[in-house]
Amino acid sequence: MRRIITLSSDFGLSDHYVGVMKGVILSINPEAQVVDISHEVPKYDVLRGALLIQNSFAYFPKDTIHVVVVDPGVGTKRKPIIIESDLGTFVGPDNGVFTFILEKQCNIYEITNKDYMLQDISSTFHGRDIFSPAAAHLSSGVSSDKFGDKVENPILLELPKPQLKENEIIGEILYEDSFGNLISNIPASIMPDSCRILVGDTIIDTVVQSYQHGEIGEPLAIIGSSGYLEISVNQGNAANLIKEHKINVILKP
Amino acid sequence: MRRIITLSSDFGLSDHYVGVMKGVILSINPEAQVVDISHEVPKYDVLRGALLIQNSFAYFPKDTIHVVVVDPGVGTKRKPIIIESDLGTFVGPDNGVFTFILEKQCNIYEITNKDYMLQDISSTFHGRDIFSPAAAHLSSGVSSDKFGDKVENPILLELPKPQLKENEIIGEILYEDSFGNLISNIPASIMPDSCRILVGDTIIDTVVQSYQHGEIGEPLAIIGSSGYLEISVNQGNAANLIKEHKINVILKP
Amino acid sequence: MRRIITLSSDFGLSDHYVGVMKGVILSINPEAQVVDISHEVPKYDVLRGALLIQNSFAYFPKDTIHVVVVDPGVGTKRKPIIIESDLGTFVGPDNGVFTFILEKQCNIYEITNKDYMLQDISSTFHGRDIFSPAAAHLSSGVSSDKFGDKVENPILLELPKPQLKENEIIGEILYEDSFGNLISNIPASIMPDSCRILVGDTIIDTVVQSYQHGEIGEPLAIIGSSGYLEISVNQGNAANLIKEHKINVILKP
Repeated sequence: MRRIITLSSDFGLSDHYVGVMKGVILSINPEAQVVDISHEVPKYDVLRGALLIQNSFAYFPKDTIHVVVVDPGVGTKRKPIIIESDLGTFVGPDNGVFTFILEKQCNIYEITNKDYMLQDISSTFHGRDIFSPAAAHLSSGVSSDKFGDKVENPILLELPKPQLKENEIIGEILYEDSFGNLISNIPASIMPDSCRILVGDTIIDTVVQSYQHGEIGEPLAIIGSSGYLEISVNQGNAANLIKEHKINVILKP
Repeated sequence: MRRIITLSSDFGLSDHYVGVMKGVILSINPEAQVVDISHEVPKYDVLRGALLIQNSFAYFPKDTIHVVVVDPGVGTKRKPIIIESDLGTFVGPDNGVFTFILEKQCNIYEITNKDYMLQDISSTFHGRDIFSPAAAHLSSGVSSDKFGDKVENPILLELPKPQLKENEIIGEILYEDSFGNLISNIPASIMPDSCRILVGDTIIDTVVQSYQHGEIGEPLAIIGSSGYLEISVNQGNAANLIKEHKINVILKP
Repeated sequence: MRRIITLSSDFGLSDHYVGVMKGVILSINPEAQVVDISHEVPKYDVLRGALLIQNSFAYFPKDTIHVVVVDPGVGTKRKPIIIESDLGTFVGPDNGVFTFILEKQCNIYEITNKDYMLQDISSTFHGRDIFSPAAAHLSSGVSSDKFGDKVENPILLELPKPQLKENEIIGEILYEDSFGNLISNIPASIMPDSCRILVGDTIIDTVVQSYQHGEIGEPLAIIGSSGYLEISVNQGNAANLIKEHKINVILKP
């Protein structure tokens, strides 16, 4: 069956890790279509892995299998899991990396059935030995309940939520992208029509429509492509300019 | 239809940007075959994007669709375009990134038909919302004239051309590759049989046939794989050694 | 024929080099399935290329064609070769990069038949002009003996082997991965049940089962996913902490 399997991890691209995951998948299901999302999640940064898959899954067909391996606890008792939901199928460690996915109704299964793992299981590379084989078998049509028992209380990350006050929204910069854009946790839906934005020493008075607004090198505020308030610099790098992680949106009267 | 779509951009590989472009494409045409050229064009460097696709397209089948997104003007009035030519089909912003392609006879269409875009169009990520859907629909057999009206005067970059004097060619280093090779704008076709090459303080007296010429660490001149004069260092990095961007080829009598 | 071709190199991902190799392959065999292992082998580091493919090939189907281009001698007399063995088919330069593969029974062929090369052969990019076309033609069903004569004495790297003394194993750190894990040349099979490990100033008293053992930031010893003794730091980077390349395993009585 030609079904998409996406791969996301903190493995980087310099080692053999990602390549062998693909070898494992294609050995089990030669028809699987493997697509990398990113393997440059900062090492061990489960929240960044959670944000990466949150920003991506909706653009793939609903029958896609998303493997996310940001897994500092590999080899400990943390569970390998499969999540089935209307958003897609997700495979990875039960460590909070699927927090955003788990906000929706879903069924979760622990992967314990050794029939669907590689024969030798290392204690350091479950991406190769457990998660890739699971994704490949899922893509071949094995149903999730064949892998193991249901999991009832998956691990969830505590996510910083924006605070709404009478005349102010207090948010946080969640991450910076490779352009140095600072992406906040303030969704477009709660942004006022008219506001002043403060981040550290920087004051921004309007939310603009394009990165190429104002002078080159000037900070600006924009609703980014994932639907959140974002601080950018026209053809520059906001992350180099602004180190503050708190962001205040003050309503104009 | 199984048709190749190549992707080139300055998005880097650490974010979800490239992954979601692939999700969008495969959601529209599951048979498309997506191939990355590079996503590490230096940020906002339209000339480097133009050189990247110039060095690549000829090695792909003629029915390939090449998407190039180096797009500092995203969200402004710059046009999203499709170029149809004997060299292939090209999709991206009308900002000069296709300058080399446009040297040949071609037809250019502005992408305005919303039937071939994602439903919600951000002002910051046309790679996802406009260019990827356009490429996917093209690969499914939609003809270019369905996307919008013809464009008559596309933006072209002014490219530094080598100056030919009586006993000298004055050229420029256009870019360095990841090996530190310095690639000039002087094509093999105008190189004299016998010459002395000057770049900053470095003097080179012959054009050699292999990077492994002379002593390890010594600068050398060679005709690179794209057919241009290139300055290299035997198992070293010329870009670390030579910072000058002017290159002089002096004819020997 | 839908056969996998893996690509490994020191080309990096910022240039057009890897992209055009894929274009060349798919132009010759549109059904080939190209999978990257890694293109971030340190420049010119043939041993790292050899270790990369050694750690990878076993996870791919046996009919996979593995192209490895770490090729500082491109354009010199070093031979382009094809290796046929029970481990798979391998294509690349005869410079030692296939040392581990050549430990097994195999047949080696020099690639000299110009029918299976690109029309114009550069002296600097055989990945594009010779190795990719060879892999593509192999994947289309051309048999290895059509490419050229047999090679009898391929180049082999001298690999540092661990020394076994009465109460001690003296090994070497072969490389560090992107997590900073230090991977040694000491296989699990010769590790004693109880030992003390010395690397530089660091003393480690047990071999543990998970990277998340002990305190965060503390060095630990573990059998890595490739089956070799490895020095790691719990959620940290051992390579930043430990610069020594000699590793001593002292047997406890």
